[in-house]
Amino acid sequence: MTSTRPLPQYLVQRYHGWRATAFTENRAWYRRLADEGQRPRAMVISCCDSRVHVTSIFGADTGEFFIHRNIANLVPAYAPDGEQHGTSAAVEYAVKELKVAHLIVMGHSQCGGVAGCHAMCAGHAPELDEATSFVGRWMDILRPGYERIKHLPEDEQIAALERAAVEVSLDNLMTFPFVAAAVEAGELSLHGLLHDIRDGQLWSLDGKGGFVSI
Amino acid sequence: MTSTRPLPQYLVQRYHGWRATAFTENRAWYRRLADEGQRPRAMVISCCDSRVHVTSIFGADTGEFFIHRNIANLVPAYAPDGEQHGTSAAVEYAVKELKVAHLIVMGHSQCGGVAGCHAMCAGHAPELDEATSFVGRWMDILRPGYERIKHLPEDEQIAALERAAVEVSLDNLMTFPFVAAAVEAGELSLHGLLHDIRDGQLWSLDGKGGFVSI
Amino acid sequence: MTSTRPLPQYLVQRYHGWRATAFTENRAWYRRLADEGQRPRAMVISCCDSRVHVTSIFGADTGEFFIHRNIANLVPAYAPDGEQHGTSAAVEYAVKELKVAHLIVMGHSQCGGVAGCHAMCAGHAPELDEATSFVGRWMDILRPGYERIKHLPEDEQIAALERAAVEVSLDNLMTFPFVAAAVEAGELSLHGLLHDIRDGQLWSLDGKGGFVSI
Amino acid sequence: MTSTRPLPQYLVQRYHGWRATAFTENRAWYRRLADEGQRPRAMVISCCDSRVHVTSIFGADTGEFFIHRNIANLVPAYAPDGEQHGTSAAVEYAVKELKVAHLIVMGHSQCGGVAGCHAMCAGHAPELDEATSFVGRWMDILRPGYERIKHLPEDEQIAALERAAVEVSLDNLMTFPFVAAAVEAGELSLHGLLHDIRDGQLWSLDGKGGFVSI
Repeated sequence: MTSTRPLPQYLVQRYHGWRATAFTENRAWYRRLADEGQRPRAMVISCCDSRVHVTSIFGADTGEFFIHRNIANLVPAYAPDGEQHGTSAAVEYAVKELKVAHLIVMGHSQCGGVAGCHAMCAGHAPELDEATSFVGRWMDILRPGYERIKHLPEDEQIAALERAAVEVSLDNLMTFPFVAAAVEAGELSLHGLLHDIRDGQLWSLDGKGGFVSI
Repeated sequence: MTSTRPLPQYLVQRYHGWRATAFTENRAWYRRLADEGQRPRAMVISCCDSRVHVTSIFGADTGEFFIHRNIANLVPAYAPDGEQHGTSAAVEYAVKELKVAHLIVMGHSQCGGVAGCHAMCAGHAPELDEATSFVGRWMDILRPGYERIKHLPEDEQIAALERAAVEVSLDNLMTFPFVAAAVEAGELSLHGLLHDIRDGQLWSLDGKGGFVSI
Repeated sequence: MTSTRPLPQYLVQRYHGWRATAFTENRAWYRRLADEGQRPRAMVISCCDSRVHVTSIFGADTGEFFIHRNIANLVPAYAPDGEQHGTSAAVEYAVKELKVAHLIVMGHSQCGGVAGCHAMCAGHAPELDEATSFVGRWMDILRPGYERIKHLPEDEQIAALERAAVEVSLDNLMTFPFVAAAVEAGELSLHGLLHDIRDGQLWSLDGKGGFVSI
Repeated sequence: MTSTRPLPQYLVQRYHGWRATAFTENRAWYRRLADEGQRPRAMVISCCDSRVHVTSIFGADTGEFFIHRNIANLVPAYAPDGEQHGTSAAVEYAVKELKVAHLIVMGHSQCGGVAGCHAMCAGHAPELDEATSFVGRWMDILRPGYERIKHLPEDEQIAALERAAVEVSLDNLMTFPFVAAAVEAGELSLHGLLHDIRDGQLWSLDGKGGFVSI
């Protein structure tokens, strides 16, 4: 049995604050969510980065967004090989079971994962190239994105690779037969966003491959 | 190029509201977070479920928690096989790169993933047993948990399996050499929590294998 | 004194967002609306259903539509009996006090009230027949509509009853002397619409009793 | 058959704009709302006044709020007398059928209905006292509110009566057995709000009978 520690006291205190306020104010809604199950209208795939708060940006209520967060908001290509694919499982559950209407991939600026991928692809991070590097192998998903942006001036490459991470994920999403079928049938729409941490700006992928300020 | 749609207007409106208030009020802090990078004190692994809001429960500020969310808050065992492991990559990044001091696994009641795993292990969900089921293969991680709880009265099994999901993930975390080393060195502490959606209660895994109300 | 609860926090946040953006950008217009009173050009009677957004469909500005919403967008016949008639009061205020130029009755597909009325008239919902059922008694207004459509094939009846709800309401509006007089004098025009939730289509009652796509 | 007119061209144009943008962007969500029915988490009772936009203030998505709008956001007392009570029907449907978790009564400043009620109760509007006045009879619901505020300085009375309209409606809501039972069981919470048209401020009824700025 793994040895665990008590929760830090400041978190215990905050939890009791939440329970006495936000939870109490919405007790009826939480009860319904428990009894009837969730029915989120959208799935969001965003980064684990502590500076990205999707629910805060969108004033989300409990029950609104089904959220998967991984390093660099990546989706691998469809690979039904019997192995464990956490991201693919989350997408499958959202689209086939919950039947969400929107699937939003939200990237962000200053992404450590993307910076690592850039260093690795540019040959500056041999440790990420090793088979034992989980981060390196995960960022392999973004290698096709590096190919698209490596011709750019060096000081533009990382920002371009952050945008490419959103595009590659969207492209990979379409390789899942059930995603493509739902999009085709008009039951699911895909959205690509990029959040700038520094100035708070949100950019949206338009239909023609560019990001426009919204 | 994947065809995307503009963001629904009500989300655009809410984003502008966030930017004019929460963002503007904290502009200096966001700028620092962008310029100096994130420095979260804890990593949280929770479920994608729309009813689970870790940042809300803990009144988290932007920059505080590095959050990975997947189906049923699971962590696979250490497997440096050169394949893509999104969860392992997130753990590696948090512990080795960000050097978080706390690693919290937070399960929850009414978990659809856990219920699916129970049905699969009990032989009632053959579709999840198929090699092509991403959810099924992902939930294989929890099979050892099912072995621990299958002797219980049937109406207690699912709740017990929700607790087991937290325990199995913590056990698997300790199979990562860098996690074990950090715990050993006193640089990282592990925590197991279970959130009850219906009554808002938070349960914490004590050192002896039981969950106590906090 | 009735015990109330604080507003859920996510609504508080959204309100502050609205105030910092939409309100601030239109501050002068809101001030004028407050100082000079409203002067809407149209009254709309629509359903309470959360899926029907008249202001959204018509890109309405604040101050444009005087909106009454009740179950199934019904108007009872003129009955000056000294009792409380909320819908009649709203119509009276709009026509006599605000002197709106248009009065629009907007029905919609998948209406729960209409479906309930159909079940009640067809003898399948005895609980709605009871004197104590507010929904049942309210839907009595639509009983004449059921008489008009009950000869149709069964799978066409509910959609026909949704259209009849608009027609019956318009017929009843004309039993109000001040409505008939305003229409007669060319100061008020009546409009009947039906909104299809599923495909977004809007149908308009033409002068000959049919609904045409607009 | 009632004679209707074609919809004004500017509204037809706006509808086509909505259909080409907001509807198209959310096609999948509208389809789901049509196929699975609405599941709003809150009912809002507000005034018909064209200056009050609940969905705008709260950045509401289609499907979020079940909205009843009548003159002066009034709820009559429980009266299961077999007559037609549109407001009571809406409350019954929201609480018993839709099982909303929140019921929000939202009053507003500069309310024409409240001003009329004040004039009537103060003896300055004999036409509203007549049995044939629908507005007058409807505003009778607020007479108990006038009794509470008539001792105040004259220039404070109307604003006080606007607040009383919210309080009286909440009191009357609690006379409905199914409302009281749901509140008692923790399945429904009541909220009282007052919206100031001029400065955009929202006031919330606290538990002690006062309105506080939020």
